[in-house]
Parts: sequence; structure tokens; C-alpha cells
Amino acid sequence: MSIKDVVALSGGVGGAKLALGLSRVVPSGSLTVIANTGDDFEHLGLSICPDIDTLTYALAGLDNPTLGWGRRDETWSFMESVKALGGEDWFRLGDRDLAVHVERTRRLRSGETLSQITTDFAAKLGIGARILPMSDDRVRTRVLSDGGWIDFQDYFVRQQCRPVVRALSFDGAPESRPAPGVMQALQTAGTIVICPSNPFISIEPILAVPGIRDAIRASGAPVVAVSPIIGGKAVKGPTAKMMAELGMEATALGVAQRYGNMISGYVVEHEDAASVAGIAARVTAAKTLMLSLEDRETLARVVLEAADALRR
Amino acid sequence: MSIKDVVALSGGVGGAKLALGLSRVVPSGSLTVIANTGDDFEHLGLSICPDIDTLTYALAGLDNPTLGWGRRDETWSFMESVKALGGEDWFRLGDRDLAVHVERTRRLRSGETLSQITTDFAAKLGIGARILPMSDDRVRTRVLSDGGWIDFQDYFVRQQCRPVVRALSFDGAPESRPAPGVMQALQTAGTIVICPSNPFISIEPILAVPGIRDAIRASGAPVVAVSPIIGGKAVKGPTAKMMAELGMEATALGVAQRYGNMISGYVVEHEDAASVAGIAARVTAAKTLMLSLEDRETLARVVLEAADALRR
Repeated sequence: MSIKDVVALSGGVGGAKLALGLSRVVPSGSLTVIANTGDDFEHLGLSICPDIDTLTYALAGLDNPTLGWGRRDETWSFMESVKALGGEDWFRLGDRDLAVHVERTRRLRSGETLSQITTDFAAKLGIGARILPMSDDRVRTRVLSDGGWIDFQDYFVRQQCRPVVRALSFDGAPESRPAPGVMQALQTAGTIVICPSNPFISIEPILAVPGIRDAIRASGAPVVAVSPIIGGKAVKGPTAKMMAELGMEATALGVAQRYGNMISGYVVEHEDAASVAGIAARVTAAKTLMLSLEDRETLARVVLEAADALRR
Repeated sequence: MSIKDVVALSGGVGGAKLALGLSRVVPSGSLTVIANTGDDFEHLGLSICPDIDTLTYALAGLDNPTLGWGRRDETWSFMESVKALGGEDWFRLGDRDLAVHVERTRRLRSGETLSQITTDFAAKLGIGARILPMSDDRVRTRVLSDGGWIDFQDYFVRQQCRPVVRALSFDGAPESRPAPGVMQALQTAGTIVICPSNPFISIEPILAVPGIRDAIRASGAPVVAVSPIIGGKAVKGPTAKMMAELGMEATALGVAQRYGNMISGYVVEHEDAASVAGIAARVTAAKTLMLSLEDRETLARVVLEAADALRR
């Protein structure tokens, strides 16, 4: 086992920040990012994979620094024109972003797999790391709220996370298979990183693909998670609100408890270190809020050093 | 019979100019434009209808005055990004234009017909005239060149009309049915106009839909064609080149001979009037080159007056 091969599990924005940091400190070709596809959906007839795309844009340096999602130098002519035709405009698709959805949809229809297309896009955009969807099979996160089950993007974007979450399901997960390369990456990983993504809607869909959770447990590699909660608040998104609604403590400790003995290392913000002192995983206190590119690289190094420490 | 109801057969750019003129001089709700769909094709997984869209953009005032095709105030972010992903970029799709293709494709897949969608788009864009595809069924113009049969857009756009045309076919036409509304419009038309479009690739695909040619002959209405050839040259596109390759005279007379006794009136540029003096249809000499909006309206009035003269 070597630290050379790093496998990161990631959702969208928060996870992509650390993935970018890792891609800059891990030797080229030695980083595999396994992306959540539970957020994927079909919209305007297009196959949209928000987390894969956020990771791809971040690792290619094409992400939008102002919006925090979507593409740099984006234009919105398509969206304006769709609206004029009476089309749905609640999910904002930029003109450059659209190229990815249109080409992916065309290639999926022609029989290519999501992992083949994702790999090819990454190569075309000059990304050295490997981005793998958790599965080429259809898995869809759904949210049980007081009005019944709704699709994830309906909850997340259209209703802006306002509904109270009573439960989550990952439709299709029990029948899904890990995408080609996922199991081998986990089995040969020197380090496994759980990115600071939402545990419930970004990481757990990945773990719900049969074989993945067991492969992580069996790998023998250090498994280091980074808390997405800082001082009781999520840096972005509904993690804290969702934890509270699901009856958990919306803290770094709550996240660690959720991951349980799957993780052997846990990186938290300095202010949260004392609160997680009692967990089984080895705790590292660090600056986990990633504002700058330097922050991303520094945190990536902290995570890899935490893994090294677990190997000693 | 009244001149009130005008039915125009049209292809793309040239035809759309006269269709716009007609839409400005014919009472609102009294103009029906039957559009060629032989140029339609599937590209990047999208259903693209170049002539319907050119007509729609022209009648909505959304056409691009600089390019002569596509949309006004267009942006090209999608195309740039598709190219970066290794996608095909020989058929240029602007970001605004794309909205029409994506929405149409989605709605066709959900079971709506092309004529329903075309009617709805026209309404959304504030168009008073009715735009009807010649058929909701699939008809595809193909070109026989020295290398064999090729798809129309391959000939027209990718190869920029360079191949020598030996023959044309309209695949699917024999089994196609006129779109809802087409037959009734022709049967009740006060005036039928053949726009100055390419006879072979814009008008004849429409006439190849079973029932349409017979309905025009049987209508009793004046049928006035406008020559797309001025002084032996096509205003735009491959009409003259194609006529020569198909063994015809590339003149206004050649076009009239091609339409034969289907037309009862023929509007040509002044300089061509003498050359067509011997044809059976009544000839009107006019300025047929439409550079300005006023030119379009003036020519529309000339065409309607020619029809009136045929009724007297």
C-alpha cells in the first residue's frame, strides 16, 4: 500500500474544493474521485449530472467563482430563450454548461456509458485526475417531506431546500453496480478521503451502491473524512438543516457519528476539535474552510498527512 | 373565394423574406405559411427544423440580419464548449437558437406533434400568421452526388453545396401525410403563393407530400410563384448551380418550366420579364430582390395584386 493512490468520495461544491486541492498535491494519475450521481436528473430532455459536472469544472479550472456552481465566463442566452418559449426555467442551465448536457445525452442515447463519457470529457478538458461516477446505473435520491416523496432537484433547486426532510431514499441503488474502476480503485487505494460533502445526499448515495461500503471497510487504507460542518453550520447547502430535521445533532460530532467506524481519521475545524475528542477516529484540527486555492491545497496536505499518521 | 386567405409555400431564407412581407400586408390571421421540412435533421441528439425556424424567427422579428440565418443577438458559448468536448461543430447552433431545438426535441419525445409545437412556439413569440410544417411525418431530402447518396445537411452545410447534384430524393414523402390544417388551408385559399425559394429542395419536398400538389391544382385559387433566380443567378444558395447540374437552364424561365401549369401567375425581376414572356402563366415584372423591409412588403403587395388580376 502506498499513499500514491488516493481515492476521494465527493458530492458537488464543497467536495470539489478539496478534490481540486488533492489534484494539485497528489501525483498526476494517482487521484480517483468517485462522484455522487444520486442528484442526477433528466430535465428539458437532457441528462444532467450536477456533481460530476461540478467536479469536472473545478478540476479543469472552468468553475464559476462568482456563482459557486456552473461554468466560468458563462452566458445565459439559452435560458432566456427557453423561457420565452414557455419552457421550464427553474433549473438554470448556462450556455457553456449546456454543451456538456447535450453531448452527454447524445452519447448516452448512442449507447456509451456515463463513466466512458465522464472519462472522455475529463481528458478533453485536460484533467489529470480520474473522475468516476459511483455507478453507470440509474440511482435517484428522493426526499420524503410532509407532502410526500419528491425528486431531489425539486427539493434542492425548485423548492430551495425549504421542505422539511423526513427521510431520504436512493431509488435504484439496491440494483445498481459500481461503475467500472470503482471497486478496483477502492481495493488498491493507499488513502481514502471522504470529502466535506453532505453525508446524507452526497456521500451516502455512493455508499448505497452495493459493494462500495464493504470495499472501503475492507481496503485496509486509512479513511479520512473532512467535516462539512463548522461550528454547527454547513459552509453551504442544507446539511445542518437536514441533520436537525432527521433528528441528529447538526455538528461535526453528528457527522462523525453518522460515518461511525467506517472512518479512521477525521479532520475538523479547530473550534470543533474538542467536541469530537471522544470519537474512535483519530482527529486532526485544521482550517477546513476553503476560501482560496491555497486553502484547498493546504487542506489536501493536512488530509494526506492525517492518513500518513494513521499508517504509522 | 376571397383574397383574404393567403397560403404561401416556403423554404428558408428567401421564402421567409416574402412570408414576412405577406404577414405585414395580409390581415392578421389570414396568412398560412406551409414550411418545407425536408431539410430537417437530427444533430447532437436534437430535432432541427431549419426552414420552420427561419420562418419563425423572420415572422417574430428575431432573425439575424447580419448572418441571414439564425437568431438576432445570438451568442455562441454552447458551440465553443461543444467543440472543446470533441463534439461536432460543422452545423452552427447559437445559444438562443438552441432553446428552440431543445424544447422541440423534448416535446416531440413526449408525444406532441411537430405542427402542435410549431404553432405553440409561434404563439409564444407573438406571430399572427400560421406556420405549418408540410407534414408531421418524417420526410428527408437526400442528394445523389458522384460519391453516392448523402443527407441534405451534409451536402448543404458540411460540404457547402460543393458536390455536384445528380438527383434528389425525398425519403419518406410517399408515406407522409399533410400536417393537420394543410389540406384545408389549400382547399379554402383565396391566393396561393410559391415563395422565391429553391424549387428543388424547398418547394418540391412540399409538393411531394401526397395530396398537396393535387390540392393546389384543384383549389381554383390563383397560384403565383416568385422566381428565386434573377438574371441567371440565385439571390442566395445553390439554386442556379443545382439547376445547371440537373440539366436545366438556370434562369427564371427554367424555374417557370419546372413549375409548369401548376402556376397561373409568375413574378420576375424586370430584367427577366422578356425571357419568360412565352409561358402560360401571367407574368408580372417587379423588383423581386428584397433588401429592405419595405422591399418585402412591396413585393408582397405585387404578388397579391397579381393574384387579384388573375381573378378578374
